[in-house]
Amino acid sequence: MLTLGIDPGTAIMGFGFVESVGSRLIARAYGSVTTSPKARMQDRLMKLYDNLDALIKEYKPDIMGIEQLFFQRNATTAIPVGQARGVVLLAAAKNNVDIVEYTPLQVKQSVTGYGKADKKQVIYMVTKILNLKEPPTPDDTADALAVAICATHSTRGGFFQ
Amino acid sequence: MLTLGIDPGTAIMGFGFVESVGSRLIARAYGSVTTSPKARMQDRLMKLYDNLDALIKEYKPDIMGIEQLFFQRNATTAIPVGQARGVVLLAAAKNNVDIVEYTPLQVKQSVTGYGKADKKQVIYMVTKILNLKEPPTPDDTADALAVAICATHSTRGGFFQ
Repeated sequence: MLTLGIDPGTAIMGFGFVESVGSRLIARAYGSVTTSPKARMQDRLMKLYDNLDALIKEYKPDIMGIEQLFFQRNATTAIPVGQARGVVLLAAAKNNVDIVEYTPLQVKQSVTGYGKADKKQVIYMVTKILNLKEPPTPDDTADALAVAICATHSTRGGFFQ
Repeated sequence: MLTLGIDPGTAIMGFGFVESVGSRLIARAYGSVTTSPKARMQDRLMKLYDNLDALIKEYKPDIMGIEQLFFQRNATTAIPVGQARGVVLLAAAKNNVDIVEYTPLQVKQSVTGYGKADKKQVIYMVTKILNLKEPPTPDDTADALAVAICATHSTRGGFFQ
C-alpha cells in the first residue's frame, strides 16, 4: 500500500510517499513545493495544486493522509492555511484518492509513541523508521512523512485500535 | 465589463455576475451553490469548484471580486472558509480571471455609501442598484452581488479614488 502524507501551507507544502512492504516502511519520494511570497495568491495556489496533481498521477497513492486542523493559534494564518488545504483536498478528490485525517496528537503518538513529542523527536523517529540517510528537510517534508507513517500504521489496523 | 462576485463558504457559495452598460449595472446571473453537510469535505469542495468552473466558462467574466478575510471571528470556521476560498481562487486562476479583493468595509461603502451598513441595508441597496424584482436570497447571493457591484464601481475608477 502506498500512502501520501501532506503538510499543507501556502509558502511550503511538504509531501511524502510511504510504502508498506511487509513490516517495513519505505519512503518512495518526498520533498516540498515552495511558492514565492511575491506571486499572487491564486498563482501560488495553482502551483501547489498542479504540482500535487502531477505527483498523485505519477505515484498513484492509495490514500492521502493530512492533519486535522480545528483552529490555528494565529488567527491571521488560518485563512491562508485553509486555502492551501482546500486545493490539496481538491487534488485528492479529482484523482479519486481517499483522504484520512489525524489530529497532531495522533500523528505524534503514531510516530514517536508519545502524543506530546516535540518536533525534533518527530524528525528523529521519521528518519529512523524510514531508514533515511539524513533527516528530511525542511520540517514540512518531515511532517508530511510523519502523517504518511501515521496513515500507514492506522490503516494497517495496528495502532488506533 | 462583466464582473463576477463570489461569497465563498463550504455549505453555501453565493455568486453574482454584474455587467456595467453605460452608467447602468445589470445582474446577468446570480444564485448559490449548496453542498450537503453529510458529504465528505473533499466532495463538497469539488462540487463548489466544478460549479464555479462551469459558471466562469459559460459567462466569461473579466474580473472576479471576493472579500478579503484577515481573520474569522469564530476560529473554528476559519479553516473551512479558507478551504472554500482556496478552490474559488484556483478556479479563477485556472480560467485566467483576474481577482480583485475588498474588505467588508469597502464593499458596504461602495454599495450603501456607509462602511458600517447592516445586512438589511446592503440587501436593500443591491436590490435597488440592480433593479431586481425581489431581494436576492440567500444572503450569500446578495453578498456576492454586493462584491460584484463594488468591483464594478472600483474598477471603473469612480469610487476608491
